[in-house]
Amino acid sequence: MRRLDEVGEREIIKIIRSRLDLMPRMPVPFGDDVSAYDLGNGKLAVLKTDMLVGKTDVPQGMSLWQAARKAVVMNVSDFAAKGVKPSVLLASLGLPRDLSEKNMEEIGEGLNAGAREYGAYLIGGDTGEASDLVISVSLFGLAQKLKIPLRSGARAGEIVAVTGFFGKTSAGLKTLLRKADAPAKLREGLAESVLMPHARLTEGLALARTGAVGASIDSSDGLAWSLHEIAQASKVGFCIDKLPVAEEVERFAEINGLDSKELALYGGEEYELVLTVKPKRWHEAAKAVEKAGGRLLQIGKVTADRQLVLKTGRRTSLIEPRGYEHFK
Amino acid sequence: MRRLDEVGEREIIKIIRSRLDLMPRMPVPFGDDVSAYDLGNGKLAVLKTDMLVGKTDVPQGMSLWQAARKAVVMNVSDFAAKGVKPSVLLASLGLPRDLSEKNMEEIGEGLNAGAREYGAYLIGGDTGEASDLVISVSLFGLAQKLKIPLRSGARAGEIVAVTGFFGKTSAGLKTLLRKADAPAKLREGLAESVLMPHARLTEGLALARTGAVGASIDSSDGLAWSLHEIAQASKVGFCIDKLPVAEEVERFAEINGLDSKELALYGGEEYELVLTVKPKRWHEAAKAVEKAGGRLLQIGKVTADRQLVLKTGRRTSLIEPRGYEHFK
Repeated sequence: MRRLDEVGEREIIKIIRSRLDLMPRMPVPFGDDVSAYDLGNGKLAVLKTDMLVGKTDVPQGMSLWQAARKAVVMNVSDFAAKGVKPSVLLASLGLPRDLSEKNMEEIGEGLNAGAREYGAYLIGGDTGEASDLVISVSLFGLAQKLKIPLRSGARAGEIVAVTGFFGKTSAGLKTLLRKADAPAKLREGLAESVLMPHARLTEGLALARTGAVGASIDSSDGLAWSLHEIAQASKVGFCIDKLPVAEEVERFAEINGLDSKELALYGGEEYELVLTVKPKRWHEAAKAVEKAGGRLLQIGKVTADRQLVLKTGRRTSLIEPRGYEHFK
Repeated sequence: MRRLDEVGEREIIKIIRSRLDLMPRMPVPFGDDVSAYDLGNGKLAVLKTDMLVGKTDVPQGMSLWQAARKAVVMNVSDFAAKGVKPSVLLASLGLPRDLSEKNMEEIGEGLNAGAREYGAYLIGGDTGEASDLVISVSLFGLAQKLKIPLRSGARAGEIVAVTGFFGKTSAGLKTLLRKADAPAKLREGLAESVLMPHARLTEGLALARTGAVGASIDSSDGLAWSLHEIAQASKVGFCIDKLPVAEEVERFAEINGLDSKELALYGGEEYELVLTVKPKRWHEAAKAVEKAGGRLLQIGKVTADRQLVLKTGRRTSLIEPRGYEHFK
């Protein structure tokens, strides 16, 4: 009998799912970024829960305020990927008993900051004692049934796009854990990407409204993993020919003798959107994101061939199905 | 600066709440058994989250299957108190890495059993690594705005009622922790009340439909504490003249030289409903509960005088504001 550290998070979820009676006619399939309940009249109640655990998700240098805010942001990011506006949230807290009153104020303020940044309110929750800090956030919002881009919606020929450049959080984490270094200004910028993540909510809402999106996911488990998730759910492949490596990450990699592509592909806790766009609607999608204050970057094409290929100049290589995973 | 074990759960919640921007026109006030979001047309989305932590909420003798099921039941109980049917739920799991695959099956099956018992489906969730077992469940359901009995709805002259007899879980916990003993059959029945709790959902739904209820709460923090919560929210007092002590608890108390009233009043993790009923509608309320397969027991009256008085024969005493509280 295997222990969880031999099984890994993704298989744990499969085991649990195999024991459940599935709700008939689920409007969003199990395992997509969010869950949903059909309210009738084409409307959905959209739900999401994601847990932040101190031991694994709060690196050295992150304050309790930042941890609480991040617990909200990581949930909002999944709503962003599905183009759903979060209305309200609940927080369930597991608290080590040696925390102080002041720590509670920080957590309350961090949760509130995260909620208000995205127009939502914290309306309830629960606290209990635990050995680790645990912040479990649940989000609720309303959506039109037909407007939610699923992971399974990608079709060959579509354009693969992302809402930003990658690698900053993996680089930032390395500097926070003192496994790598960089000049102060660069280091601070990279650390900031870990400590103060932002969800691409306005971009996600704008994209979903266009109807130009095939599939969409957030990149919290890393760019490579996100592409693999879409590939698997949509039964397609990808040819990525413009890897969106952040300029800061190129510099950081050079200084530390690291591979910038590795940092950009196989990181995690990076809250960009990874999506596919119908080619004829590209202009419209890109414009919608710009109007929302963001940028949509083309990084490749969806292929019928179910492989994930990275083209760099004349070289091609395969993008591996790995990324951030708990228990591993 | 005080630590959390000096502050206690209820004050922790107050501190966090004081740091939040409150949503305007909350349909259910902060701190009631559930939270709600106004969907318009008199309808509410009702939400609840409650976290079970292995260290504090899973006594010796409780299996993982039972713990997972209990994590659902304790949430459903709050819906029951507000007369709301749970539709779907999410579970967010913090898992120690030395658990096994088999343990995951048990947790999956326990969550599913809890959900299906009350007609709900588990439709999503999340897992991560934690030092303690953490099972955070979030519930979603729909309700009519005007049908939700709040904690603040009690009025002087109303009848105080409960859906069952009290004290079994405090007695059961003592036997599970080997702090007390009893003949095998009695001991097993008491332990069962801890290991396999049931939420009074059919009773709660039937009661809310009558419109005969003033205030309602579930008794998960103990009977005394539940009465104090209603008293505070409704600005009333209580005169309790028929304390609903379970017959098994009388026997258990006698064997162990314990006070059965203490066990019935100041326990916890007991999922009965505690409510007030308009006197003219008593018959209707009692009948509705009977039709739902339960019993409604009169235990006293709501008073304008803001004291909680217990009458036993000719003696009167005060019911203290204490009960189950995390961190204490």
